[in-house]
Amino acid sequence: MALDTRKFDALLTQLKGLECKDMYDNDFFLTWEKTDDELKAVWTVADILRTLREGNVSTKVFDSGLGISLFRDNSTRTRFSFASACNLLGLEVQDLDEGKSQIAHGETVRETANMISFMADVIGIRDDMYIGKGNAYMHAVSDAVREGHDAGVLEQRPTLVNLQCDIDHPTQTMADMDHIIHYFGGIENLKGKKVAMTWAYSPSYGKPLSVPQGVIGLFTRLGMDVVLAHPEGYEVMGEVEEVAKANAARSGGSFTKTNSMAEAFRDADIVYPKSWAPYAAMEQRTELYGNGNFDGIQALEQQLLAQNAQHKDWTCSEKLMSTTRDGKALYLHCLPADITGVSCEAGEVDASVFDRYRDPLYKQASYKPYVIAAMIFLSKFQDPAAVLRQLAERGQQRQFEMK
Amino acid sequence: MALDTRKFDALLTQLKGLECKDMYDNDFFLTWEKTDDELKAVWTVADILRTLREGNVSTKVFDSGLGISLFRDNSTRTRFSFASACNLLGLEVQDLDEGKSQIAHGETVRETANMISFMADVIGIRDDMYIGKGNAYMHAVSDAVREGHDAGVLEQRPTLVNLQCDIDHPTQTMADMDHIIHYFGGIENLKGKKVAMTWAYSPSYGKPLSVPQGVIGLFTRLGMDVVLAHPEGYEVMGEVEEVAKANAARSGGSFTKTNSMAEAFRDADIVYPKSWAPYAAMEQRTELYGNGNFDGIQALEQQLLAQNAQHKDWTCSEKLMSTTRDGKALYLHCLPADITGVSCEAGEVDASVFDRYRDPLYKQASYKPYVIAAMIFLSKFQDPAAVLRQLAERGQQRQFEMK
Amino acid sequence: MALDTRKFDALLTQLKGLECKDMYDNDFFLTWEKTDDELKAVWTVADILRTLREGNVSTKVFDSGLGISLFRDNSTRTRFSFASACNLLGLEVQDLDEGKSQIAHGETVRETANMISFMADVIGIRDDMYIGKGNAYMHAVSDAVREGHDAGVLEQRPTLVNLQCDIDHPTQTMADMDHIIHYFGGIENLKGKKVAMTWAYSPSYGKPLSVPQGVIGLFTRLGMDVVLAHPEGYEVMGEVEEVAKANAARSGGSFTKTNSMAEAFRDADIVYPKSWAPYAAMEQRTELYGNGNFDGIQALEQQLLAQNAQHKDWTCSEKLMSTTRDGKALYLHCLPADITGVSCEAGEVDASVFDRYRDPLYKQASYKPYVIAAMIFLSKFQDPAAVLRQLAERGQQRQFEMK
Repeated sequence: MALDTRKFDALLTQLKGLECKDMYDNDFFLTWEKTDDELKAVWTVADILRTLREGNVSTKVFDSGLGISLFRDNSTRTRFSFASACNLLGLEVQDLDEGKSQIAHGETVRETANMISFMADVIGIRDDMYIGKGNAYMHAVSDAVREGHDAGVLEQRPTLVNLQCDIDHPTQTMADMDHIIHYFGGIENLKGKKVAMTWAYSPSYGKPLSVPQGVIGLFTRLGMDVVLAHPEGYEVMGEVEEVAKANAARSGGSFTKTNSMAEAFRDADIVYPKSWAPYAAMEQRTELYGNGNFDGIQALEQQLLAQNAQHKDWTCSEKLMSTTRDGKALYLHCLPADITGVSCEAGEVDASVFDRYRDPLYKQASYKPYVIAAMIFLSKFQDPAAVLRQLAERGQQRQFEMK
Repeated sequence: MALDTRKFDALLTQLKGLECKDMYDNDFFLTWEKTDDELKAVWTVADILRTLREGNVSTKVFDSGLGISLFRDNSTRTRFSFASACNLLGLEVQDLDEGKSQIAHGETVRETANMISFMADVIGIRDDMYIGKGNAYMHAVSDAVREGHDAGVLEQRPTLVNLQCDIDHPTQTMADMDHIIHYFGGIENLKGKKVAMTWAYSPSYGKPLSVPQGVIGLFTRLGMDVVLAHPEGYEVMGEVEEVAKANAARSGGSFTKTNSMAEAFRDADIVYPKSWAPYAAMEQRTELYGNGNFDGIQALEQQLLAQNAQHKDWTCSEKLMSTTRDGKALYLHCLPADITGVSCEAGEVDASVFDRYRDPLYKQASYKPYVIAAMIFLSKFQDPAAVLRQLAERGQQRQFEMK
Repeated sequence: MALDTRKFDALLTQLKGLECKDMYDNDFFLTWEKTDDELKAVWTVADILRTLREGNVSTKVFDSGLGISLFRDNSTRTRFSFASACNLLGLEVQDLDEGKSQIAHGETVRETANMISFMADVIGIRDDMYIGKGNAYMHAVSDAVREGHDAGVLEQRPTLVNLQCDIDHPTQTMADMDHIIHYFGGIENLKGKKVAMTWAYSPSYGKPLSVPQGVIGLFTRLGMDVVLAHPEGYEVMGEVEEVAKANAARSGGSFTKTNSMAEAFRDADIVYPKSWAPYAAMEQRTELYGNGNFDGIQALEQQLLAQNAQHKDWTCSEKLMSTTRDGKALYLHCLPADITGVSCEAGEVDASVFDRYRDPLYKQASYKPYVIAAMIFLSKFQDPAAVLRQLAERGQQRQFEMK
């Protein structure tokens, strides 16, 4: 369990070459609001934190302090990833459970944000269910605590990490990309790689759009050829498609769309088959909820299920996999997947495909705690490289080791 | 983020002059069970802890240990304040969620209290819903763990902090007063200040009495002129009024009652307009619950709402505010407030008044974590000033700082 | 609060003589899967950890890291014991609340186990409701994280502690035995002591079998004469009875069965009267649940209650207690007990008996956090004695003490 100093030094040198000072005292909402250097800083710090932990070096930079989590949707992996990230840095997680709180009794966002933040260093929020709401809510919270800090109410300003909103899922896609970078042996090897971000059939409805949107908004920045595939009627947010196009133009990659899963998979280096709900339907649902029209919601859900059922052939089968680059594209999923014959009768992926990729899939997920920790870290230290160097020198053990 | 040593030294000198040794190994139930010096010690230690934290000096005095929280009513700010206070001192919060526990299956208070306390250093309880029950329950818990400690069951005796009972809300009112002391530039400036603790209309019913009771029980100790105002029929506990009278006599202040909000506000330096339920009705409700008479409860609630509705003119309007000292009384609320046109059609306060006082209101709330931490701290160290001095000397950083 | 070094040294010497290296990087499922030395190591390390804590010496061996708890049944004391144990060693507890997670949405055990474990050092599970399921589930989780670790997904392998399954309740019975060892002044004094593990009447049904099974599976290893008493029809798992027989044969003790509570109590040194459900009924219930036959379950419950009611005379009365060794057998219970006239009309034990033994009962429970911590500790360090020695030398304070 000794620190791999060569690896550590190499990563640190990399980090020093990146311009990331604007991340200090700042939030992380959408990947496309960050510069390339800033994203690289997240991956590099994530790798450094992991290297230190593997070397049994503590990266506890907080002696006390809270990490507040607010999940407005069920979650296992993101919840535990956030908890792990906070713990790694020395923050104790406090979950704002809206059921147990007085929020229902008329507290405003501004008030609640300040009331929970007296000793909070970071706030992580998942709010992905309603179009136009989640990201806006996060901004409202961030503005509130910034004002609270400016007014002298909060001694420190808690920075915000978007744990999934209606637009993007940056901790997921940044972890996905960290996995890809490692898999292909470096960011420099990604140019020209073909990525198929495709819709896939699921017997459930209403899955958020943040993953496909986040993927096309991020992967197009690395010179990859990103294909977005879905049946007609499953469009994602137009604004994010514009982001993807602009990214591709800048990075020397491409962003194309197709209504054929086969076309997307052909010669792909990476496939990401996953169900989502049509953007238009999600907008409609948001409106119905807003009006308290529950009959309308139920009708919409039935309609969505019927619509999904017309596309059961959109599944990541062995046959489709065999058409990818050497039949060996890297299969990605944010998990949990709907696996045909395992978690449902017919779903997003064949059981044999999923089984073959289990270890890489779990590794993909394993980057998330480090990516979140890196986002927090970069928002807390003006000179992250210097701090990481001093942490290595401090040499505090994560687990007690015999002298 | 360097420690303000002049401020620190001054506060420490102040603390050394206070007699607070009986707080050691003791609980905090009601403010009027404490001496003036003990209350001053709480404010002083709270300010010292805040000064240390602002100076990035860790006040972690526990390397391990639990802080147990037991909330029998919904809570956001007190829950997070308790969690923050525990975290600041190094204790991990464990919430006793009675739904998840076996308490329903016939555990006695004595048994549960011991079973959760093997490694607990403090227990915080909110139990404010039933007259004659909450404070009694806290005493039962405290007695149980004292006996458990004496019998050798518990290695340490967890001390108890009253996070709101049927009689008092000491962490709230002590935080309120800490705010007032800072606002008016020192405890010595409070003599003769007029305080209006007044009932205000709210469209909800059954709000606890612990805040108005706690306020008249505490504020009367500082030489202030405390006026309790409410419509006829909204009396608070008679015993607490007696406490307030005796306090005022001792402190050279006064305690008066009126059924006119206007009279209370006239020339007031501080106003605290807030809804509460009539004591008699709360007693009746407690009895109805005891008998399982849910029809009776519903009838009572309707009656209370109707009774409230007769007093919609009891609201903290701009007009009333203009009658206070220079039109600029300090507006207090324990939050969340019922704000007219914001959280309800008609409520306790005009939106423009609330808006103008938002920052001071949030600051008022920001003292609570430190007040709770001070209560815990004073119950754990025989010579708190000496320990605080050594913590400053230790100079452990709360957040890692570059050398 | 100074460390009792004589006691500490004696315990450490004891520990050094025990062969427990196979506990390193291993799980704790059933006591009868462990060697005598390994069980002794648990009691010894538990006593050492307690001695250090009593001497205000921190035993924090983790600077960061998570302890995951998964309770599939309500729990107070085991939940808090696990939390206390984790906290004592420096791990932060994260509860996997299946209601808040996506488990319902088709995550497999293997996947969930890995997804929550990226920074987990230990997983504690209670799953005691269904015959043939709980222990199997724990093994599935353990296998999953071992595979995840081997595949490079998890940097550390979280070890598993059985917090109660369908077969055994090792943290309970090991704590019980630690209490007995202290009560009788040493493990060497237990030979020939008569233990009555007997069924007792309770107005509730369906209590798990893990305690009586765990008791006969463990207590028979120490040369004691263990009598299992219950009405006809309340048999426990046959396999565990076989374990008890074999244990008794090896240890020079005995294992006998009777349908008479009086016979079991006669001259007993230790009595453990406690209700449980018939094994056959529990199997039936498991099957009914599996088939979703809720009418069948309700019918079974009525039948079980009626069956219980025929044995109201199976109660730990003063009269029965007077027939034990000198009328002073050590009374044990895992708590909460059904106390006649207190928590129910007629139950497992007379109120006067329970009251007389309250302090010893609470002490019995107080060993559990230390037993759990010892199990974790032994799974994390190859040379536990050397680490404990160094912790004493490090002399880090649990609670800040003045210099």
